[in-house]
Order: sequence, then structure tokens, then C-alpha cells
Amino acid sequence: MNGADALITTLADNGVTACFANPGTSEMQFVAALDREPRMRSVLCLFEGVATGAADGYGRMAGKPACTLLHLGPGYANGAANLHNARRAFTPVVNVIGDHATYHRVHDAPLNSDIAALAAPNSLWVRSAESADQVGALAAEAVAASYGAPGGNACLILPADAAWDESGARGAAIDPPGPRAPDPAAVAAVAQALRSADKPVLLLGSGACGEAALAAAGRVAASGVRVLTDTFTARQARGEGRFRPDKLPYFGEQALKDLEGVTLMALVSTLEPVAFFAYPDRPSVLVPPGCATLTLCDRGTDAAAALAALADALGAPAAGPVEPYASPPAPAGKLDAWAIGASIARHMPADAVISDDAVTAGLPIFTQTRNARAHDWLSLTGGAIGQGMPVAVGAAVACPDRKVLSLNGDGAGMYTVQALWTLAREALDVTVVIFANHAYRILGIEMGRTGGGEPGPAARRLLDLGDPRIDWVAVATGLGVPAERAETAEAFDAALERAMAGRGPRLIEAAMG
Amino acid sequence: MNGADALITTLADNGVTACFANPGTSEMQFVAALDREPRMRSVLCLFEGVATGAADGYGRMAGKPACTLLHLGPGYANGAANLHNARRAFTPVVNVIGDHATYHRVHDAPLNSDIAALAAPNSLWVRSAESADQVGALAAEAVAASYGAPGGNACLILPADAAWDESGARGAAIDPPGPRAPDPAAVAAVAQALRSADKPVLLLGSGACGEAALAAAGRVAASGVRVLTDTFTARQARGEGRFRPDKLPYFGEQALKDLEGVTLMALVSTLEPVAFFAYPDRPSVLVPPGCATLTLCDRGTDAAAALAALADALGAPAAGPVEPYASPPAPAGKLDAWAIGASIARHMPADAVISDDAVTAGLPIFTQTRNARAHDWLSLTGGAIGQGMPVAVGAAVACPDRKVLSLNGDGAGMYTVQALWTLAREALDVTVVIFANHAYRILGIEMGRTGGGEPGPAARRLLDLGDPRIDWVAVATGLGVPAERAETAEAFDAALERAMAGRGPRLIEAAMG
Repeated sequence: MNGADALITTLADNGVTACFANPGTSEMQFVAALDREPRMRSVLCLFEGVATGAADGYGRMAGKPACTLLHLGPGYANGAANLHNARRAFTPVVNVIGDHATYHRVHDAPLNSDIAALAAPNSLWVRSAESADQVGALAAEAVAASYGAPGGNACLILPADAAWDESGARGAAIDPPGPRAPDPAAVAAVAQALRSADKPVLLLGSGACGEAALAAAGRVAASGVRVLTDTFTARQARGEGRFRPDKLPYFGEQALKDLEGVTLMALVSTLEPVAFFAYPDRPSVLVPPGCATLTLCDRGTDAAAALAALADALGAPAAGPVEPYASPPAPAGKLDAWAIGASIARHMPADAVISDDAVTAGLPIFTQTRNARAHDWLSLTGGAIGQGMPVAVGAAVACPDRKVLSLNGDGAGMYTVQALWTLAREALDVTVVIFANHAYRILGIEMGRTGGGEPGPAARRLLDLGDPRIDWVAVATGLGVPAERAETAEAFDAALERAMAGRGPRLIEAAMG
Repeated sequence: MNGADALITTLADNGVTACFANPGTSEMQFVAALDREPRMRSVLCLFEGVATGAADGYGRMAGKPACTLLHLGPGYANGAANLHNARRAFTPVVNVIGDHATYHRVHDAPLNSDIAALAAPNSLWVRSAESADQVGALAAEAVAASYGAPGGNACLILPADAAWDESGARGAAIDPPGPRAPDPAAVAAVAQALRSADKPVLLLGSGACGEAALAAAGRVAASGVRVLTDTFTARQARGEGRFRPDKLPYFGEQALKDLEGVTLMALVSTLEPVAFFAYPDRPSVLVPPGCATLTLCDRGTDAAAALAALADALGAPAAGPVEPYASPPAPAGKLDAWAIGASIARHMPADAVISDDAVTAGLPIFTQTRNARAHDWLSLTGGAIGQGMPVAVGAAVACPDRKVLSLNGDGAGMYTVQALWTLAREALDVTVVIFANHAYRILGIEMGRTGGGEPGPAARRLLDLGDPRIDWVAVATGLGVPAERAETAEAFDAALERAMAGRGPRLIEAAMG
């Protein structure tokens, strides 16, 4: 077999069965090999940032890596922002990056670049297969590396000759490395500290927001400890039947106010919280004065097991409080994020997945859906906007029977608008909502906070998306996705109800300003 | 003044007066400072790849750098593919990359990454301003570094505190470093070798394709030496009144056939030609057997002066042959790239600029426009598609009185489709043509050449853009650009004639399959 066959076969043997691709000439052998490996589903994306974001969404929902197929250094770079988000979500992703034939690199042809150097900052593992006989073994290594724990990006560089030479050999089927078991001493120490602390909190990171971990965290809460999560988590089980922790506020001063007087912060699968950005004369670290911190488990540990052990050690009840389902009243009048959140809570079916790139609209909707039907919420983990639609693509490929909602600020949505075409092509069951406020609204808030003062005409023009106004219905329709615009809360509620009742891709432009 | 003021003032003092921006929170001080520096024109782009491509187009046409404003590592990464193209075009570009405040980096907040490591592979110069008092001096250094010679990317990392602290000081106004004077010994050696060679050619790189250099090259041609250019050049003066060199064919075997029997290749502002990609059992270097190579001047040298000296040394006539204007007949019937090329030659006004990201449609149009009115042709230099519309944005900002044509494959156009919005916002005089063949056509050709064989259903699906078909008229209209679709040669000819006669942005979808 050639190297490309060895690669795809080994990936499929190791459970990697989805490939989000934008190939070029140097990847033609990989593309040809897809016809010989029916286990691999390939999904064409019209920009690499869609492919990498989709792999992130897939990995968050499937709990195993997808692969991407990227075209040399520039193809990797186009996908790097969403791989940055994947890195911050600890999502396992295997990136296959095509390269020139090994002997061709020295000639520095136009597409040549230092791919390994580009990939390193985002990656747990970067290797190049310098000959076909290495490809299979490295593919197995890449899959193993992507799992971590915690997970992340593994990048396998595939020179064209390593793909086309016939000395390929299938790599091993590996046992995916799992998270470590919790440390009983850490559990005992945290239990004792929580018991004696005046005002303790438990802070959960991404790895502690799955269904089992949250159930255990709810037991801890029932024993009298306040539980919070990081502001942005990779995947959080929410809604009916789930324990609802508080969320650490985004703005540092609000977070510190919320934590005022806390004397002990126990960290679960996370680190000490820090401000998303620095601001003049404001602290970077969001631990209040006099508050001790203690770690229950790091990100490589099974947080659900650690939390269950902690709950047991605290003598917590067998079950914590969970949310009941409650349908908010139908929203009326002005269309804002609160009204949209109410509609989502009303109409979203059970087991839906929400991909959140909603920026300023995100928190109101997060709040409104606390009593919604059971769902998973996928946050923007790395701050690189343009994640929302690509992650929705991947989540829908991973979970074809679950409704996916993709929430996007209009600025964020434009970053990877090409994802709409893939939604249409693959007939994915994704409803895209665009919050059309015609501005980088968050920057209007941040301008003052960073000491920039009141924006003048030149500054205002860099925060404004309203000239011209983007017609999202036209854009989506042009890319094959049925779309409509809603200008009132009633119209949005009706549009969302229709979208939730149907199947397949659609877009609703929420006209908010 | 604060660091941001020091930066923008120093940039403007050094002739950097255009900023292609997509800012975020860490860049708010820079944005605020724009209101205090009226010399700087800022242009908002809805994706960083548009901003960097625009800076490339601006630099190619203005002969001086624009700056970009990018949001930390992910913002840089989003723009890196078009900076790869700029690197291969030797375009001076100053990239201002915002970063967390210096003291905040250690906390590894979500948007933190190793920006310098990411930027290094594409850059001549990368520095971070670690305090406000360094910013002005580093800004002047960055501008100087971007000029080279030859030019390239200079990246100035601007931590938020270096922008907001008040210890900023204006940097020096520098003299832009120019290219080196030619080496008389090299000129004499090449002249002698050309005289005695049996079958010599002169190969021109990007730096030797400006108006003066081509006029001198035409004189050399008149003395009996065949003159070719590299396949992709950053900016080539063409059409009426200009000398027309041949172009080295894209496919290696065609290039070697074209060069068969050549005994001497004199290199002007370029290196030995190499194949764009490697293919099984085909050579990488495109110098025929038995052909000697000799360098007239490297990329840092004034190629026009070197060529003029060479022409003098050869006793060449005072002027070489130049193209007359000739209008092709009106095309009729089937709409293909040859017909489109004829329409462009018929209707394109003098002094137009063509931004070519047309992939398979590019060569027919290049050929058809050889006798068109005088124009500049900007090629895809680095092979990273998605350059065409962004470069057109920058060219139009640099040259507001020149008509700009942006030629794009449909696959390439989707990469940076966000550029349409900036065309509309800035009312730039750009006509965008999309070659809607609903395929990555080039890959259908390359699949066989790389040994991939006949594509099966899975492979074909990764080369096909036809399901669903993109409605470019809807997409462009949605982003504010008036658009129409042409399905015949006659309809295209009429649409292009209207576009050339009018002003402002518009898009023509050329329905080609």
C-alpha cells in the first residue's frame, strides 16, 4: 500500500472516521485513498478555518478525534485560529498537513514554508513522515498524542512522496490513553480544607463540566459549597435534570466582586482564573485577596471520579439539586438576546447542542436557557471568533440525531461564513442564528475599559459593521442555506419554532439594531 | 504621548498612511489613536486574510508599505496565508500585532500564544515593543526592515501596556533603503556569456517586471536574446507600449519542453526555476540538461539598472519591441476564459490593474490581454489561494484613479469572500469576476499528474463545488456589492463593458459550466 493508504487505514483502525478537508495538489494521494477506505467520511470545507473548527466541534461531541486535511503551511495557517480554540478546549484533533515531496523542499518552491515551526505553538505533537514506511506508525502515534490527557492538536506532516511511495505499512491500533485516576491525598486535602474554610468555592474547568462530573459537583454543592465554572468551557451539560453551577463573570471586576470574601478556591480541572484581557490598573489574577487556592485535580485527571470521591469524603447526599424544565412565556416586542434566549428555551428539543460564538448576546441566552430541555453548550474557548458555525458543522457530523444551534455575532459569523455551504452540502441539521447588531459591540464596551476614551469618527468606523448592512438572508441563500429575517421577538419565536420542528440547515437573521 | 500615538505618528512620518485592520480588545488604544493622526487611512476588513492581502496589494502598487492591525496570535494566523503570498512577492508590509499587556502574558489567558514564533516563518523582522518608550523607535525600524531589499513582512508586536503607557516617543523618519546598484563585473560576465552562448535565455523575476526593467529587457531581446519571466510575478507592466516577454509555463514538463536546447540561463532578480509541485518521476529543477546558469543580479539589486547596463554592454538598440494596442473581436457563444480574456482586452481602460487569483482561467486571460491597453498584472505569488479580492482592495486604495479587475476562481474567491464587504464600504473602483466552474478544476488536472489515478466518488466529492451551486450574485448583493450573472460570451462582454464604463465595486459571476 502507499503511504496515503497506510495513513487513512490506520486512522480508521483507531476510530478516526471523519475528515474535514480542503485539499490541494500535494494532498491528491490522500484524496484518492479515500475511495479505498469506506470507514472514513470526508467533508469538504471551502476554507481551512471551517475544517479545523469542525474537527474541534466533532471532537468535543464524539470524545475522539476527527482529522483535518490541510494544504501545506498556508493551509495550516488558515486553520490555526480554530486550532487555537481547540487547544484551549483540550479537544483531540489530528491534523494531516500535506507538504512538498521531501526532496523538493530544498528548492523552496512558492508554497514551501516551515510547517513544523508554524504548527508548534498550537500543538501537543508535530512530526513529519519522511518516508512512506513511517506513515502508518506515525498516524497511530498522532492519534494517541491527540488524546493527551488532556487532549489537543497532533499534527502529522505528510510530504507528497511519503504519500505516493508504495512502502506504506498499516500502523498499530492503539488504546486511547484515558485520563489519570484522581489522587486520594488531593481529595482528602481538599475535603478537609473545604470543611474548615469560612467561605469556599469550587471552580470547574472544561474537563469537569460533563454530565457525570456535574452530577458529582451538584452533590458537593448540596453539602454547602458554592460551585462555579470557568467563564468559557468546552462542553457543558445543562438544562433539565442537570446541576447548574454559577459561571465566573467575563469582566474581571465583576468576577472579583462575585468572589468577594471567598477564603478558599478549590480548582477542578482548571488553573487559577485570570482576566481575559489586561486593563490599566486592574488585576490580572481573579483570586480575591486572602483567598487560598488548592487543586483537586489537574486537566489530565478524571474530574468526574475526583468530584465523586470528594462528594463521598464530604459525606454529601447521593444527589445534588437539578434543574426542572420550565418554559418561559412567549417573548414579545423588541428583539434582543433575552427574547431570543426565551425562544430557544421554549423550542429547543431535548439533547440539542448549542455552539456559542454569540459574543455579547451569549450571556443572556446562556441565562435564559438554564431551565431549558437537556442540552450541551459549547463555548468559544480560545477567544478567536469564527468558531460558531464550524464547530456546529462538526457537532452535527458527530451527532446526526441531535439538533444543533449555532449562535453567532454578525462580526464573528463573517469570519468563517463559508461554513454555510458545508451545512447545505451535507444537509446537516443545524439552525444558525446571526445576531445582526451591525457592530463589533463588545469592542464598543472594551474601548472605554482599556482607557481608549470616547471613540472619535475614525475609531467608531473600525467598530461599526453597519455600512453597508450585511443581508444575511441573501448570503445564506447564496450559499445554499434557506434563511429568513426576524425583526420582532414574535417573528423570531415563530421562525425558531419552525426551525426546531424541521430538519436540515437553516439560518435566521435576528435583526437587533 | 502614549505608545499607540507614538506608533501611528512614526508610521505616518515614514509614509505608512494606510492601515488594513481587524482590531480586538487588545488593540483599542491603537484604534483610539487613529482619531489623532489624520494622515492614516484605516480600512476595516471583516477577516484578517483580507487585511493582509490588501496590504500586499497596496504595497505592490504604492511601492511602500501599508500596515495591518491584527488581534494577537489567532488574528495573525488568520492573515498568515496572504502574508505568505506577500513574502513571495517581496512586498513591504508592516504588521502591527496586538498582544496582551507584558505582565499579563505569564498568566496564559485564553488568547495568549507565542506570536513571535508564529510570525517568524513569514517575516524578515519580528520584534515586540516591551514598553511604550520603545514603540516609536521600533516602528521606524519595522518600516525600514519591510523595504529589505527585497521587501517583505516586518512584524511589530504591540503589547497593550506598551500602547497605553504614556512614555511613548516619536521614532525617527528613516530613509527607505533602496535596492543595491548592479555589480559591473556581473553585467560584463553575463554580457560576455550571452554573446558566446549558442541558445541563451534571460529569466526575469518579480523585481525585473516593472516598466523600466521591461523596457531594458526589451532592448536585450532586440539584441537576439529570448526573454522569459517567472510563472508568477508580483507586478508586471503589460499591454500597449510595453515589451512582452514569454512566461515560463506552470507545468514542469511544459517548461522543460519550452527550454529544450537552451545552453545558458541568465537570472535577473530570481533563482533557478523549480517546479511548483513535485510529481513522481519528474524533475524538481526546471533547467534543461547542459544548460549553464548565471546571475545578472539578485533580488536586492536594482534590476532595471542592471538590465539597462546589460543592454548597453550588448550594444543593444535604444528601444526594444513593444506591443501595439489591438482590440480582439467581440466574443460570441460559449462563455470560457478565452472569451472573457477577449472582453477584458476590449473594454479594460488604460492603466488598469489586474489582480489574478483565477487559477485555471488565468493563463487564457493573460494571453488574451497581451495587446490590451497598458496595465499592471498582479499574480498569485505564493500559491495560497484567496489573494485575488484582498489584493484588489489594497490596489484600489493605493491607486484610487485606476480601474482594478479582480479575477477569481470560485474556489479561490470563497477563501476571502469577506473582501466584498470592504469593497462596498470603501466604494472602491473594483470589478470582481468570479469564474464559476463549480469545481477545484486545477485539482482535477493534478490528480492524474500526481499519480492519484482516476478519482472515485469520494475523491470527486472533494474536488467538486457544484452541490450546492454558489449563487455569487446573492452573496455579493448580500455583502453590498451590485452583481450580475453572465451565461454567454455576449452577456459577459456587455456586463464587463458596463462595469468598465462605470465606477465603484461590482461583481460579475461568469457562469462557465
